[in-house]
Amino acid sequence: MSAPENAPGNVVVLTGGVGGAKLVLGLIHALPADGVTAIVNTGDDFTHLGLRVSPDIDTLLYTLSGKADQAQGWGRAGETWSFMAAMASLGGPDWFRLGDGDLALHVWRTMRMAAGEPLSAITADVARAWGIGARVLPMSDDPVATMLESDAGTLAFQDYFVARRCAPVVSAIRFEGAAAARPAVGVLEAIGDPATRAILIAPSNPFLSVDPLLAVPGIREALSHASAPVVAVSPLVGGTAVKGPTAKLMAELALPIDTTAIARHYAGVIDGLLVDERDPPGDPGIAHARADTLMHDLPDRIRVAQAALALADSLR
Amino acid sequence: MSAPENAPGNVVVLTGGVGGAKLVLGLIHALPADGVTAIVNTGDDFTHLGLRVSPDIDTLLYTLSGKADQAQGWGRAGETWSFMAAMASLGGPDWFRLGDGDLALHVWRTMRMAAGEPLSAITADVARAWGIGARVLPMSDDPVATMLESDAGTLAFQDYFVARRCAPVVSAIRFEGAAAARPAVGVLEAIGDPATRAILIAPSNPFLSVDPLLAVPGIREALSHASAPVVAVSPLVGGTAVKGPTAKLMAELALPIDTTAIARHYAGVIDGLLVDERDPPGDPGIAHARADTLMHDLPDRIRVAQAALALADSLR
Repeated sequence: MSAPENAPGNVVVLTGGVGGAKLVLGLIHALPADGVTAIVNTGDDFTHLGLRVSPDIDTLLYTLSGKADQAQGWGRAGETWSFMAAMASLGGPDWFRLGDGDLALHVWRTMRMAAGEPLSAITADVARAWGIGARVLPMSDDPVATMLESDAGTLAFQDYFVARRCAPVVSAIRFEGAAAARPAVGVLEAIGDPATRAILIAPSNPFLSVDPLLAVPGIREALSHASAPVVAVSPLVGGTAVKGPTAKLMAELALPIDTTAIARHYAGVIDGLLVDERDPPGDPGIAHARADTLMHDLPDRIRVAQAALALADSLR
Repeated sequence: MSAPENAPGNVVVLTGGVGGAKLVLGLIHALPADGVTAIVNTGDDFTHLGLRVSPDIDTLLYTLSGKADQAQGWGRAGETWSFMAAMASLGGPDWFRLGDGDLALHVWRTMRMAAGEPLSAITADVARAWGIGARVLPMSDDPVATMLESDAGTLAFQDYFVARRCAPVVSAIRFEGAAAARPAVGVLEAIGDPATRAILIAPSNPFLSVDPLLAVPGIREALSHASAPVVAVSPLVGGTAVKGPTAKLMAELALPIDTTAIARHYAGVIDGLLVDERDPPGDPGIAHARADTLMHDLPDRIRVAQAALALADSLR
């Protein structure tokens, strides 16, 4: 394969939270940062304590600006927790932990959204203020809420993911508001741009983090018709999920836990799949390449970004 | 004078911020805490970064629950400042400093007020959560905003007090919304209760902290007709203000800076005035007593509270 870092054109990446942010970080080190556009899931967004929280956007902003808590995987490094302690003393909820520094982002966003500014404009301003070269776009400025039908009833995403630690058995997932949501300005343009070199789907949870993006009318169609190759990085490593409920959800949704199921899930959207080299051999039924897709450190992240770009370049 | 701590009945105190909170703290140590009702100025309240801040109520809650930063005079002891640092990195305003722990109170109040709860109910809950025995009542659940006409134009209170450090020359003070505001539930009842032993006016700024209270329709009248004696603690010590812009404001409003002017300001409201022993001798034109009214430490605060109560008891 040719050295992908020398190929021209912008790269678009559809991403969810922690795993996706690692890939985007790899991309901005493999490429000029201003050639990278991240389109981010907002189905996890919710209002907590009156504040508008956008977990996947926040994780990406912290990761790209070097502020992320690497060990924890979310939030800010060197965070303090005086707010949570005081909130607990008031009898307030403490199941969703908001760090003191993290709060600034939520308060700032809430205030500006209440004044009528779109999430996309606020996100762009934060990225600029923090010196982030990549473009960070929410999938939509309209509210979309990931909801899970489960053996514990209908659950909002954060109730399932944080409060209940993904324990309930899920029977269906839906994206409230998605049908009426419009892609944020720049989303369809980036996907459809003839100058776009590659479109990547990060190894985020396909059902919880990527499907909300695909549920926004216009995004799936734009991916299908894009001139740039679309390559997903499989979220499976060695036949299971690295982290999070991907494998558990696949079992609950009666899917085989393998890359073929991932490829089928993205059928009509992707042109290729980057598969972890530890996965059982087999044909996922789509163009693919194998690589070490674990992303422990920055060199790993750059390597995975480059492997995904190389697969995409081979499919042009 | 008799020992006031042995007299029966509840004590009501009208108070503003830091100085007033010291007197209320003295009162709850001189008396059973649950016999003390503080009626607090809310004219300084404002919305900052989308959060509803009630500086005088907060100072009192922190002081009475032992959380106040004694050296600074406002905010919480042992506070952290991660929020402000992150807000500055976002380009947000930093002229009004919100500590990390302090934020919990503002976020909690803002969320509950947005859900339609009155400030008085939220304040009572916080007092209960923090083990405060005294009753803490906002003067009103309706919004009142202290506005200053000055040589720098019309200024909102916090703009004058915090952002401009009281530098502008003030020509008039008005209380926006006061005419339509109703006293919070319990305010008129506490003032008018025949079982009330004494009503004190704290040595808060008469023009900025006490006048808003007197501008809420019904409060001045209730004080005039109260069966309990009403005693103000003069904010002047040794002929000037201990802290804050009281003396500067009196000069700008063309008032002599003396206790006679304070007594005249409260004419029709108070029955007596507690004057600092360092003040120039003279008759303020109303029943009065002299005492050391400086409140450096808790014994000082208890002593001033007892002196004010003794004067009130002598006027029954």
